[in-house]
Amino acid sequence: MREVVLAARPQGEPKESDFELRETDAREPADGEVLVRNVFVSVDPYMRGRMTGVRTYVGPYDVGGSIDGGAVGRVIASRYEGLVEGDWVSSMLGWTEGGIAEGSRLRKLDPSIAPPSTALGVLGMPGFTAWIGLVEIADVQAGETIYVSGAAGAVGSVAVQIAKLKDLRVIGSAGSDEKAEWLRSLGAEAFNYREALPKEALADGIDVYFDNVGGAQLEAALSALRPFGRVVACGAISRYNDEHPEPGPRNLGFVVSKRLRIQGFIVTDHLERFGAFLREVGPWVAEGKLESRETVFEGIENVPTAFAGLFRGENTGKMLVRVGPD
Amino acid sequence: MREVVLAARPQGEPKESDFELRETDAREPADGEVLVRNVFVSVDPYMRGRMTGVRTYVGPYDVGGSIDGGAVGRVIASRYEGLVEGDWVSSMLGWTEGGIAEGSRLRKLDPSIAPPSTALGVLGMPGFTAWIGLVEIADVQAGETIYVSGAAGAVGSVAVQIAKLKDLRVIGSAGSDEKAEWLRSLGAEAFNYREALPKEALADGIDVYFDNVGGAQLEAALSALRPFGRVVACGAISRYNDEHPEPGPRNLGFVVSKRLRIQGFIVTDHLERFGAFLREVGPWVAEGKLESRETVFEGIENVPTAFAGLFRGENTGKMLVRVGPD
Repeated sequence: MREVVLAARPQGEPKESDFELRETDAREPADGEVLVRNVFVSVDPYMRGRMTGVRTYVGPYDVGGSIDGGAVGRVIASRYEGLVEGDWVSSMLGWTEGGIAEGSRLRKLDPSIAPPSTALGVLGMPGFTAWIGLVEIADVQAGETIYVSGAAGAVGSVAVQIAKLKDLRVIGSAGSDEKAEWLRSLGAEAFNYREALPKEALADGIDVYFDNVGGAQLEAALSALRPFGRVVACGAISRYNDEHPEPGPRNLGFVVSKRLRIQGFIVTDHLERFGAFLREVGPWVAEGKLESRETVFEGIENVPTAFAGLFRGENTGKMLVRVGPD
Repeated sequence: MREVVLAARPQGEPKESDFELRETDAREPADGEVLVRNVFVSVDPYMRGRMTGVRTYVGPYDVGGSIDGGAVGRVIASRYEGLVEGDWVSSMLGWTEGGIAEGSRLRKLDPSIAPPSTALGVLGMPGFTAWIGLVEIADVQAGETIYVSGAAGAVGSVAVQIAKLKDLRVIGSAGSDEKAEWLRSLGAEAFNYREALPKEALADGIDVYFDNVGGAQLEAALSALRPFGRVVACGAISRYNDEHPEPGPRNLGFVVSKRLRIQGFIVTDHLERFGAFLREVGPWVAEGKLESRETVFEGIENVPTAFAGLFRGENTGKMLVRVGPD
């Protein structure tokens, strides 16, 4: 089996030479362990922060070390009660073709309910992030207007759809006309931020801003927010590759004058709500009310390319890499 | 009687020529009205925003028009039940030697409990602002560490003292060694921001930042805040005279990674809590547990000078202008 390791800490945009492929030895699982063959591995924007070597809410990756993260695969051998050969599982095995995991840290997936890859997207951390941001952080209400940036991404596209299902007016921005068109097909008003000014798209005002992007989008949203508006600070992908931090928005004065609340969150603080999330969102996926798009690269050697593509907006919906057959 | 009117919208720092003195005719009160002679008028940072002509949470002042705001004075003639000649009252009559007010909009003061001028400071809107910020917005807890900028000002100095009374560790910044010394006498750790770096003063970390200043202080506080920290966005006096808005802090990324909450508020949204505020803070003032300093100018003609002085930090505690004898 092969895995991708961190060869160097990226400077600015991550590039191929920041990573290298390494052979790993598979061993037999010990008691309580499971040997898993990965089928899909996840590339996620937050992983960029872990490559800088600064400890934030989760430890940094080591140079020369493995890159753990979300993955979905199948059990090859199990010494954990409740998992047998052939079972689909989601894990944190990361950028590898497979490996040993503690059985207690795996989540068994039922492929009859939804395709297993959704455990890395709409029914995994990205979807859960969207749901927590809307329900717990913003406490969105029917009839409100929400603006979602990065709306065609893994988190944003779920936020858009959940907000629609909760009867909000939804405005989304994305980086191409095709993505904007997809967002319209999901019931959102949408614009291509490379062509249109958010100022105009948000001219009617908004109650909630779901921020995946930061930078200019945040500034525009602060101007557009109505009194008592909320900012769900979920991410700032426009900033993750900055070598030197850019200044923030010029209009933070609105926070006082419009009594705004800007609140950051990390989804892993809310894991006790994962069951409630699956109970609400799972049926929507099963009934086809919540669409899940994926952009899928092929082969473990292409994981770094897929990852770098996140920061150029090359994904529509969830970015995944298939590293093995079903 | 004389009043100060707005002669021109200030560009940058307010100057004398932006204001002019005008004679006003006093008339007899009609039914339900009261004629008041002002003793103290209040100058407050938020009034700068109302001079720009942009409607925010409160309407702008008109060029050529009166400047309403907090004032304390005595009843000269009353046709309102419950107020008689000689009573002390607080009003919104503003920058004038006196005038007619609706009796129902006046608050009768008891000078045996606290000096009437405290109704413009520690027992008025500034003190209430400090209390709401701590209790309702930050929900401060004993044992936490709070950083208060503008800590020797009307709001900040009350925030410092209430936080001490609620058993927080308090760090305050102010613009002179004398002010810092005063803050130390109140039980806070204190530094002169013109000489010391907030980075060092806040090196141990903080749980809450009470922001009266904005700008560099906010940036330093975001760096110093611990996970799940809160920013009480009360004001940004360092920014009120900006002709062109300055960029915001470079480290807003901490909002996500440290799960921070930045929340703005306007105290007039919370008036239903004013009674609760007086019940908690009034006794502290009466018992001498909460010190109230005032910087007092003399004469209606010096109101603009006192006002401009706010932005140069010329006040310690509440800035007032005495416009008549007790």
